[in-house]
Amino acid sequence: MLKLYEYPPSGNCYKIRLLLAQLGIPVERVTVDILKGESRTPAYLQLNPNGRVPLLVLDTGETLTESNAVLCYLAEGTPYWPAGRLERARVLEWMFFEQYEHEPNIATSRFWIAYLQKAEAFAEALAQKQQKGHAALGVMENHLARHDFLAAGRYTVADIALYAYTHVAEEGNFSLANYPAVRSWLARVAAQAGHIPITA
Amino acid sequence: MLKLYEYPPSGNCYKIRLLLAQLGIPVERVTVDILKGESRTPAYLQLNPNGRVPLLVLDTGETLTESNAVLCYLAEGTPYWPAGRLERARVLEWMFFEQYEHEPNIATSRFWIAYLQKAEAFAEALAQKQQKGHAALGVMENHLARHDFLAAGRYTVADIALYAYTHVAEEGNFSLANYPAVRSWLARVAAQAGHIPITA
Repeated sequence: MLKLYEYPPSGNCYKIRLLLAQLGIPVERVTVDILKGESRTPAYLQLNPNGRVPLLVLDTGETLTESNAVLCYLAEGTPYWPAGRLERARVLEWMFFEQYEHEPNIATSRFWIAYLQKAEAFAEALAQKQQKGHAALGVMENHLARHDFLAAGRYTVADIALYAYTHVAEEGNFSLANYPAVRSWLARVAAQAGHIPITA
Repeated sequence: MLKLYEYPPSGNCYKIRLLLAQLGIPVERVTVDILKGESRTPAYLQLNPNGRVPLLVLDTGETLTESNAVLCYLAEGTPYWPAGRLERARVLEWMFFEQYEHEPNIATSRFWIAYLQKAEAFAEALAQKQQKGHAALGVMENHLARHDFLAAGRYTVADIALYAYTHVAEEGNFSLANYPAVRSWLARVAAQAGHIPITA
C-alpha cells in the first residue's frame, strides 16, 4: 500500500489525499508534526533530505516528494491528467504558478497566523504577502471568470493544486469577498465526485 | 516560428533558449525590459496576465508561460524528457524544487544585487535568502555527490532548470566554493552538445 508522510492540516499534503480519494486508491498515513520539528529529524531527513512534507512511499519502496510532482505522477493515465500535449503544459503552467506565486504567500500566511500564531512577529512580511497573494488570486479570478476550470476545459490536478490553499485562504487573512469567480470555482471543485474535505 | 518574449539576463528565459538551441529549433526573440516595467504594460498584461517573462508564442498563436512548464512542453518526445513515469516524476520533483526552494532565494538575490543594485536596501531579506539558498544548494550537493545528473540518470530538463540560476549564483553572492559536486555537475551540463551560454 502507498504510504504518505504528512502533516494533516497542510494543503500540500491534502492535495495528495484528495486525488487518492478520487482515484479510489487507499493510503497509509503517517503524521509528521512539523510544529514539533519532526520533518527535520535525522530519520526524516534520510527519507527526504529537503525536510518537507508530503512524502509518498510507493509500493516499490521508492519515495517521491514535491506535492505537485506527486500529483502528476498519480494522475498519469487518469481523467485528472489530460492526454494532449498543450493541455498538459497548461496544467503544469498552473501548478508552477501555484508553487511560485500562490503557496509562498497564501499558504505561508495561513501557517504563520493559524498554526504558528505569530501574526504580530511577522507583521511586515505578512503585509507583503497580502499584496502578492491578492495578485495571485486576481490572476485566478481573471481566468476563472471565463473558464469553469483552470486548464483543459475540465477538472484536473491543476484544480486540485490550487484548491488546496485557496479554499482555506481566509485562515491566512485573505478574504475571497472580491473574487466571485474563484468562489464559484471552489464550489465546482468541492462538488466533484469523490471529493473529501481537508479535515478528512 | 516560435516567438519568445524575454528579459535576456533572466535565468528563467535562458532555460528556454538553451533547450531550443539543443533541440535545433529557431526562435524569434523579443526583449521585455523588466527594469523599465515593460512586463507590466497593458499590452504585455494582455499576453500574460501574470506579468512575467518568459512567454512563448507557439506557431498556432497560443501562448505558454511558466518557464518550467514551457521546458516540459518543448521537451516532450525528445531525449530531454524521460519516457518512464517515475523518471518523469523525478524530473518534475526537481523542477518544482527549483521554483520553490532555489529560484526565490538565489535568483531573487542575484536580481536585487546585480540588476536592481539594491543590496543595502534589501540587506535583511538577503540575509534570509542566503540561508535558504544555501539550504537548496546543500540538497543539490547531497544528491549530485551520488549522481551525475539530477534525474533519470542523464541530462534532462531538470538539469536545464537548475543550471540556469546555479551557474550564476555568485552574482547573487552565493559562493559555490563548498559545493564541489555542484561545480562538477555545472561543468557536465556546460559540456552537453549544443550548449549555449546565458549571454548568447
